[in-house]
Amino acid sequence: MLVARTKKELLDALTPLRTQGRSIGLVPTMGALHSGHASLVAKAREENEVVVTSIFVNPLQFEALGDCDDYRNYPRQLDADVALLEAEGVDVVFAPDVEEMYGPTGLPMLWVRTGEMGERLEGASRPGHFDGVATVVAKLFNLVRPDRAYFGQKDAQQVAVIRRLVGDLDFPLEICAVPIIRAADGLAESSRNQRLSDADRDAALVLSRVLFDLEERASTGQPLDIEGAWAQLRSAEGVRLDHLELVDAATLEPLTVTGALDRPALVVAAIHVGQVRLIDNIELLPR
Amino acid sequence: MLVARTKKELLDALTPLRTQGRSIGLVPTMGALHSGHASLVAKAREENEVVVTSIFVNPLQFEALGDCDDYRNYPRQLDADVALLEAEGVDVVFAPDVEEMYGPTGLPMLWVRTGEMGERLEGASRPGHFDGVATVVAKLFNLVRPDRAYFGQKDAQQVAVIRRLVGDLDFPLEICAVPIIRAADGLAESSRNQRLSDADRDAALVLSRVLFDLEERASTGQPLDIEGAWAQLRSAEGVRLDHLELVDAATLEPLTVTGALDRPALVVAAIHVGQVRLIDNIELLPR
Repeated sequence: MLVARTKKELLDALTPLRTQGRSIGLVPTMGALHSGHASLVAKAREENEVVVTSIFVNPLQFEALGDCDDYRNYPRQLDADVALLEAEGVDVVFAPDVEEMYGPTGLPMLWVRTGEMGERLEGASRPGHFDGVATVVAKLFNLVRPDRAYFGQKDAQQVAVIRRLVGDLDFPLEICAVPIIRAADGLAESSRNQRLSDADRDAALVLSRVLFDLEERASTGQPLDIEGAWAQLRSAEGVRLDHLELVDAATLEPLTVTGALDRPALVVAAIHVGQVRLIDNIELLPR
Repeated sequence: MLVARTKKELLDALTPLRTQGRSIGLVPTMGALHSGHASLVAKAREENEVVVTSIFVNPLQFEALGDCDDYRNYPRQLDADVALLEAEGVDVVFAPDVEEMYGPTGLPMLWVRTGEMGERLEGASRPGHFDGVATVVAKLFNLVRPDRAYFGQKDAQQVAVIRRLVGDLDFPLEICAVPIIRAADGLAESSRNQRLSDADRDAALVLSRVLFDLEERASTGQPLDIEGAWAQLRSAEGVRLDHLELVDAATLEPLTVTGALDRPALVVAAIHVGQVRLIDNIELLPR
């Protein structure tokens, strides 16, 4: 397995493979890899001849006020990540530093701007976040030129934004969304879980419980009780609700349902636990 | 020569050529082709095995208030353009309609935003213009995946913005800028020249005369007299000065020169003549 620290090393490794017509799968990550990432890599390994994983904590997507600490504190563990990726059969790891990605200023002049779609839900709490995501992902697509790129469904809005990036700018590749991986206690895997104390983690479980309860209601035809879910999260110990919303699964536009569901929907949610912000979501299908 | 009206027709034509490893040159145009475009195509023909020319009057780059008429009035002459491109030895013409490019809404949700660089000079008169240019060019790069793309130096700011697009988003291709083609009377070739009356055209010639004069001063080591150039354009009959500025040739940042030039510079200018807005520029080299 090659670990490329520069764009040139990456291109030198990929150009001959591309000339040979090998299919390439890309798994973009910010490192601090866990079983969720491993499931992305496994899927990419299954579907492509060459698997590239990028590890880059992208400052652009932390640009909003108050995100500085989150950027500084984001876990970095390149050696452990490289070992995990080697075990998963990855061919090339691309792990550039900020200057290699964005030049001496550390900032691009041109950005991909996500508009309305990036301003709602997660974007409402983190202005500019999805612009930073879309910009770095566009760069990675151009550097790696994959046939397929793999993203975790846990970041549901990110998946929707990236699908739109590919559609609106005609990137010639397929986006594959991979289901959420959960720990035995129900918590969705996240690099940020490392920063939870045991008590925080116990408190955080209310989120997946609330989502499972909504899923159960949808699958048994009971009316969805979004207000009830809010109330449960607002009254939970050690947790602060950021948002929980029912949205159209394809467009992420807010959905109001009076009777039974009439289309695939998502409940997307974010909470704060201690110093950590956690997100989760669940798909609800009409009966 | 194939004329592809859809993305699918374009991809079907290019995929086998790409698999064979043929080099591809792209010349993006808005049609109404003249000798300036022919020089771009000739250069692309010289340097690539396959030449693709796109013809698409991109509504996104006319989005600013007041640009609607310019968009509606922009000359459209597909048959004549196709004949010219066939004669120049082009392999594939890509001529989609607006819905094919942008879908049923006619607008992307994600845009490439050019920031400060797109807000100065031409961009000051045409807010959003360079965002529209960068967005459609990103799409064309992804659809055609050329090895080289050709742009006229006449649109000096466009060349600078596109170079930055390629650098900031890591598009894997080379940008080639081709010198301005001028008519015998000095007027820079432009599709908009078609809309000039004979009297307008005579009036418009003051612009290239003023630029040639500045070039002469720079080459003979006389002080540049930008204020004098402004005065000449402001007092010229039938002409309204939009802007004339001395800028750094690489960054397009404004330049103040007291003595002789110490680096490559551009004078970029725009005037209104009748209903038409014309641009021109000239490169000034230090002695």
